[in-house]
Amino acid sequence: MTIDPTAMTAAILVIGDEILSGRTKDKNIGTIADYLTAVGIDLREVRIVPDEPDAIVGAVNALRAAHTYLFTTGGIGPTHDDITADCVAEAFGVGIDVDPRAKAMLLERHKPEDLNEARLRMARIPDGADLIANPISKAPGFRIGNVFVMAGVPSIMQAMLDQVGPTLPTGARMLSETVEAGNLPEGNYAADLAEIAKSYADVSIGSYPSMTKDGFANRIVARGKDAASVARARAEIEALVARLRG
Amino acid sequence: MTIDPTAMTAAILVIGDEILSGRTKDKNIGTIADYLTAVGIDLREVRIVPDEPDAIVGAVNALRAAHTYLFTTGGIGPTHDDITADCVAEAFGVGIDVDPRAKAMLLERHKPEDLNEARLRMARIPDGADLIANPISKAPGFRIGNVFVMAGVPSIMQAMLDQVGPTLPTGARMLSETVEAGNLPEGNYAADLAEIAKSYADVSIGSYPSMTKDGFANRIVARGKDAASVARARAEIEALVARLRG
Repeated sequence: MTIDPTAMTAAILVIGDEILSGRTKDKNIGTIADYLTAVGIDLREVRIVPDEPDAIVGAVNALRAAHTYLFTTGGIGPTHDDITADCVAEAFGVGIDVDPRAKAMLLERHKPEDLNEARLRMARIPDGADLIANPISKAPGFRIGNVFVMAGVPSIMQAMLDQVGPTLPTGARMLSETVEAGNLPEGNYAADLAEIAKSYADVSIGSYPSMTKDGFANRIVARGKDAASVARARAEIEALVARLRG
Repeated sequence: MTIDPTAMTAAILVIGDEILSGRTKDKNIGTIADYLTAVGIDLREVRIVPDEPDAIVGAVNALRAAHTYLFTTGGIGPTHDDITADCVAEAFGVGIDVDPRAKAMLLERHKPEDLNEARLRMARIPDGADLIANPISKAPGFRIGNVFVMAGVPSIMQAMLDQVGPTLPTGARMLSETVEAGNLPEGNYAADLAEIAKSYADVSIGSYPSMTKDGFANRIVARGKDAASVARARAEIEALVARLRG
């Protein structure tokens, strides 16, 4: 598959010791991946890092430089281990302080006398960032440059993504066609499939085995942005599978 | 939390377009994270990259240099998009060819006349690597240096991890204690919790919100390798939660 130089690309950075310890199983990567694929943005890399400044700052700078968009999840709550906003400010070399707009959002949920120092941490926003509203618990995320900083709690992340998504200029939509090869062994069709893959420069063809209680079930997927090419590739793959199934 | 310079660390590299497209939801990261935590190896970073040589080789070299162990999943099947073994050989600067031991394993499942070129791809092993047996579909993984190359299908990955795990020198086991804060808001305990966290150099304390159908449910977790320290931290956190709940 050749790379389209005008393609929109993205990375995800998941921030949190609780994911790396296995205590919490991440659900956000799959949600964001599905969303980006649907709107034609190619997710090219994901990283998960601990709640440590050097790791976060390093990953933010590496990923925002390499991709059109970077989406982060986690580390924007009120406790001492929530350091994402400070790290993003450091990565961009900008200041960070309590943002009046963010404080106003927190006051929709908390009484002024309950807005203690810890809660005000959630209103600390890097200079120059735009806020991403949080309809569930009010503490906002933010966008700075090409970086979108979102919550780690999946329902809040989803609500933030729903807001951010429609504002993004997106790429040509990726089209995907699946051919079920069932229990036809990959090794039976691999050589012919490679030939088909070689003949379509603009279609990415993959073979994905999974296991069911009855044994293997293989799927062959053709993905690309040109509908005619994807359809032709699909037809060739279907013919191959039909021929081998006999 | 201070870093123990003798600690064992690990990274995971997930290889596969199907994860980045959202089509397949990764299950291996959580499985490996749980395993490593249980045996006292600190998982420090995870990356997910596409089926592309530069991305794979770059990530293998970055992660194997930075950590005691690197575990990879995916890309070791017979089809054209399975390029992990070749990329790992390139990362290490060693040759790769059909390995007689791996071929013998494949012959346990396939008749000699069915061992076509595609299936023999699964016996291509970098020079100097040790094999990791695959009790399910026979095509082996391998270990080279500090890198463990495993299958992407979760049941096969699990079987490989079960074999590899007991051979690893592990670190001091990480102990973890959880205090349920229920619907006590994080902002109510954040300042006091930060004080407790500051007073335990050898315990990592985190606060993890989640949402249930009844609203927020917060958990505070103390993790460390010294049982007495972790127990004292837990007691202080319990007392804090009890006091605030009134």
